[in-house]
Amino acid sequence: MDAINKTLHLTDAERLDRLRLIRSDNIGPRTFQSLLQHFGDARTALERLPDLARRGGASGPGRICSIEDAKAELAAAARMNVHLLAPGEIGYPPRLATIDDAPPLLGVRGALDVLMRPMIAIVGSRNASDAGLKFATQLARDLGDGGFIVISGLARGIDQSAHRATIESGTVAVLAGGHDRIYPPEHGDLLASLLDNGAAISEMPQGHVPRARDFPRRNRLISGAALGVVIVEAAHRSGSLITARMAAEQGREVFAVPGSPLDPRAAGTNDLIKQGAALVTQATDVINAVTPIMERPIVLGAREDDGEPLDFETGADDRGRIVNLLGPSPISLDDLIRLSGASPAIVRSVLLELDLAGRLERHGGGLVTLI
Amino acid sequence: MDAINKTLHLTDAERLDRLRLIRSDNIGPRTFQSLLQHFGDARTALERLPDLARRGGASGPGRICSIEDAKAELAAAARMNVHLLAPGEIGYPPRLATIDDAPPLLGVRGALDVLMRPMIAIVGSRNASDAGLKFATQLARDLGDGGFIVISGLARGIDQSAHRATIESGTVAVLAGGHDRIYPPEHGDLLASLLDNGAAISEMPQGHVPRARDFPRRNRLISGAALGVVIVEAAHRSGSLITARMAAEQGREVFAVPGSPLDPRAAGTNDLIKQGAALVTQATDVINAVTPIMERPIVLGAREDDGEPLDFETGADDRGRIVNLLGPSPISLDDLIRLSGASPAIVRSVLLELDLAGRLERHGGGLVTLI
Repeated sequence: MDAINKTLHLTDAERLDRLRLIRSDNIGPRTFQSLLQHFGDARTALERLPDLARRGGASGPGRICSIEDAKAELAAAARMNVHLLAPGEIGYPPRLATIDDAPPLLGVRGALDVLMRPMIAIVGSRNASDAGLKFATQLARDLGDGGFIVISGLARGIDQSAHRATIESGTVAVLAGGHDRIYPPEHGDLLASLLDNGAAISEMPQGHVPRARDFPRRNRLISGAALGVVIVEAAHRSGSLITARMAAEQGREVFAVPGSPLDPRAAGTNDLIKQGAALVTQATDVINAVTPIMERPIVLGAREDDGEPLDFETGADDRGRIVNLLGPSPISLDDLIRLSGASPAIVRSVLLELDLAGRLERHGGGLVTLI
Repeated sequence: MDAINKTLHLTDAERLDRLRLIRSDNIGPRTFQSLLQHFGDARTALERLPDLARRGGASGPGRICSIEDAKAELAAAARMNVHLLAPGEIGYPPRLATIDDAPPLLGVRGALDVLMRPMIAIVGSRNASDAGLKFATQLARDLGDGGFIVISGLARGIDQSAHRATIESGTVAVLAGGHDRIYPPEHGDLLASLLDNGAAISEMPQGHVPRARDFPRRNRLISGAALGVVIVEAAHRSGSLITARMAAEQGREVFAVPGSPLDPRAAGTNDLIKQGAALVTQATDVINAVTPIMERPIVLGAREDDGEPLDFETGADDRGRIVNLLGPSPISLDDLIRLSGASPAIVRSVLLELDLAGRLERHGGGLVTLI
């Protein structure tokens, strides 16, 4: 079992408040995390939301998830035996809790203990070759026999083979939509059969039909929960490569299965190996690489932005100067601090207010633009 | 054209002497090199050979190649338009001249200027797949178009495809036997057709039928002459992996073409990539890696053992002590120096005498045993 440095159990009231906060407009995992950290609990953050969004220049009042809606979501979850868990609670994958944008509440269904065990992700092409499917099956089985939980995306092709091979040993399906909106629909049976010894997880509310943009977003959960990600067959520009990139950004091990240069289904994996991914031909390649990592404790609350304070109280004079520095061309937090002369806490707070007002866009590398 | 820091042209007399020296008993390329360096020319070394071998404990007089035999070999070579060239002469591949055990005289046939150009080795399975042969053909053609000479071993399979694809752009065949003993015999036509724009090289005298042990020995010339070696398909324990190991020891780039983990013909190349070889799917992967290396000058005489002096004149008292330290269990030069208390020059000289007497076996890592 993965080590974890603390466990948590939310009260029903705090769970309800947190659910309202994450389901409110313009609140993503990072904003949620900043607000929770600053205000200490979700209820206080909820109370301050309208004021902060107004200060950020919101044209109208953003929608705040009502108590009734949140209660309805919790009730619907309970009917499907879906638990909405916070990072640090039993059943929330410990490694997933360590990523920057960990879901504040994760919908978890199935065998919760499985989610606390070391996981390896196996992902790849939907239209994989027979050889690719065969390899994924064997690799998944061997990793399962080695005590690992195999996590994947329930897609056709490689994902499906990886799940099927580990129904007995334990497998986790990460959904892009709500727990009642399985995609592809014909994998409902596969999902049902894996829940006895495995689990399904989603950050989306029930009823949410997965859209195209939800899949890359979902992929960060596959890599984030795992020690490492194995890519089995991926063409150039395939979705599996997004998972590989996210894995690398999250500090997860990236493994790729090689193929003939003449096989376009191996072009993406061969490229990954050129870029430094570890070449995998058998499960021991993966196990040997992740074993030393498993032995280190998982430390929650070790994120880079942790402990960076906010300051909503002072700095009214600075606000205008900071907003004036923002525009359609990207600017970094560091430049904003330098050019505005305001404190980092004030700059971060103003950006958060703009976030809540739906006026800020955050890009890679800490760059922001005003919408 | 590869840069080279000096050119040499032997006199007929010196070429004859060098040929006699390298064709004499118990003289390999390293011993040749030590003797030439110590005595300044091959003739002096030849004169001293009987005495040195006797001091090494030779039971009888070792065979010294006669003037007549050497003249006959030179005449036979001339009849086939084979030039016997020394490192530093035009037509002797400049990079090959830099390896520790470069042939003191290399038999060269064909277009000599081609041998001065930058080379890439392409080697692989004799029983390659159609895909492997197709890839080798395309890679060789692209490297040829990129201005590189493709060097290989004239074997069936990958070697053959690499040569055939570069008959126009220039290719070099490295033979394990003499120039008149082509292996496999059915590749005589291929060899003849590549000589117009390419060359064949061998360190063996004409008439020498290649034995099994000559092929690994030959492989060091393939890698040594090249900037890097591309392995296209190789099963576990295949001969191509010997070439890869030699390339790595010689400081040459090692490239490997990946394949499916389910294809045993890719097991060796996938392993090479795991061990650090660069993954190749197209010629630019090779060209980009070797271009910075091509820009550095090739320095002859930069070998590690260069300038390590010998001393045959003093140290008669030390000889017995050094020989007593030798036996069937391997001992290093450093230990011999330390335990005998003799100077490095004397220890090296005693070992060379034992070499000439046929009593010394040299192993990897500078270890020696007495036979």
